[in-house]
Amino acid sequence: MELWYTEKHTSNLGITMKIKETLTKEKSVYQEMVILDTFEYGKLMLLDGLVMLTEKDEFVYHEMISHIPLYSHPNPKKVLIIGGGDGGTLREVCKHPSVEKAVLVEIDDMVIEGAKKYFPECAKGFESPKADVQVTDGIKYIEETEDRFDVIIVDSTDPIGPAEGLFHKKFYEMCKGVLTEDGILVAQGESPFISSMQRVVTSMNKDLEEVFPNVQRYLAFIPTYPSGMWSFVFASKKYNALSDFDKERCEKDSFDLKYYNAEIHQAAFALPNFVKELIK
Amino acid sequence: MELWYTEKHTSNLGITMKIKETLTKEKSVYQEMVILDTFEYGKLMLLDGLVMLTEKDEFVYHEMISHIPLYSHPNPKKVLIIGGGDGGTLREVCKHPSVEKAVLVEIDDMVIEGAKKYFPECAKGFESPKADVQVTDGIKYIEETEDRFDVIIVDSTDPIGPAEGLFHKKFYEMCKGVLTEDGILVAQGESPFISSMQRVVTSMNKDLEEVFPNVQRYLAFIPTYPSGMWSFVFASKKYNALSDFDKERCEKDSFDLKYYNAEIHQAAFALPNFVKELIK
Repeated sequence: MELWYTEKHTSNLGITMKIKETLTKEKSVYQEMVILDTFEYGKLMLLDGLVMLTEKDEFVYHEMISHIPLYSHPNPKKVLIIGGGDGGTLREVCKHPSVEKAVLVEIDDMVIEGAKKYFPECAKGFESPKADVQVTDGIKYIEETEDRFDVIIVDSTDPIGPAEGLFHKKFYEMCKGVLTEDGILVAQGESPFISSMQRVVTSMNKDLEEVFPNVQRYLAFIPTYPSGMWSFVFASKKYNALSDFDKERCEKDSFDLKYYNAEIHQAAFALPNFVKELIK
Repeated sequence: MELWYTEKHTSNLGITMKIKETLTKEKSVYQEMVILDTFEYGKLMLLDGLVMLTEKDEFVYHEMISHIPLYSHPNPKKVLIIGGGDGGTLREVCKHPSVEKAVLVEIDDMVIEGAKKYFPECAKGFESPKADVQVTDGIKYIEETEDRFDVIIVDSTDPIGPAEGLFHKKFYEMCKGVLTEDGILVAQGESPFISSMQRVVTSMNKDLEEVFPNVQRYLAFIPTYPSGMWSFVFASKKYNALSDFDKERCEKDSFDLKYYNAEIHQAAFALPNFVKELIK
């Protein structure tokens, strides 16, 4: 008997994967988590039926959401990760020698525990002495913290369900308030190729441009996300991700990465004409 | 009743699309062609069960396989397209004022007729006075022609079925023979993300490097192809796609394109570390 899992990316489109077995199926007050073992992409975590990560392609998302801001800031010491309960972003952030403290604020402990049990490669981020894990609501944390951060990374689910509030202008203003004077915000920015996501791509840019003087969108190939073309938004009070890119530090560090490198840093900001059109 | 079409990209992975209707299903001596009307991607052509093109994303493939070589050559006058029976590559090639003649050699007339009937946006390539359409085997054409070409574009299906012979070193040598002294060859190069295609990515580079002094791989986002990360190979006797890129001409022409632009030309050659690893 063959088992297949089909994720509907939209009501008209999906990807389908052959499954070895279902490893777990759990519910928290926030969402349902299912972890499957697939033949093509290894282990796969679904939250409310949407692919969050797979063993085989998680490196793209985690490297691209972390190293782009961290090499655009000359000396990132304190980093705040909103969401990111699988630990992959934390793993990448903690590689940077300049980072002294990385606070990860995940609303749902179930995701953290699921990652620790089934995605040890991601969850090794939690083992870093720099990591400070807070299980609470990201918006509440930002309202209450007296810390100031050099970089904030919004590693969230889609703008439905628990992450909905992370896609509002008010949230971006709150982030600006807890960033240092030269701080950088990066957020995952949905797919410019999927018609139902295009309005989010457009509105995120509009909202962020009302809050930050510099806003830049960049792209990466993520096969298990809708369309495989995924985007991120870089927003900053001071730095430009291209002209302030610390190429020398990037090439000197040479972490053992599978996707990101100095050329990719620069190339990711080259946008196809139809994407430029969406955010102009 | 909902109709869905599922394309198996590998034996373990597929995409699935909601269908309005099946428009045609025909067989030639070479292959089976099915044309479906889908909700997300518009009309879709399948050859032997594999997606060849969709109305919504064909522009990426056709712009990227055409404009990269044509703007890397200072004065492309004669272009040979092997395959490309849908007409999309021909449409892009004929936009260039320098091009005097574009020969398209498609083995299967059924594909040309299917495109003319169901994909008029692609098939308008056939209307250009520069177009010379030959319904014959690409290898046979190259063996017999006394023409010499500035650019050859191998716009083929996957290396199974009728296109198998287009992925051999012997074929690349034959192409070299009908290229001018400063000619360029570009071929579609499969997905570096799909495990079963990685050996083709590696062997194409190896074979082409034995034939041409300069070989460069580049990438584009094609949502309906396996993994969404698609690659192409640029091979040349003389020119480098980056250092010989005619940016000025590209920006002056400013055709009405949806994907390709001068920044994309340069960025497409930035490769993730795991892709570099495959072709080193």
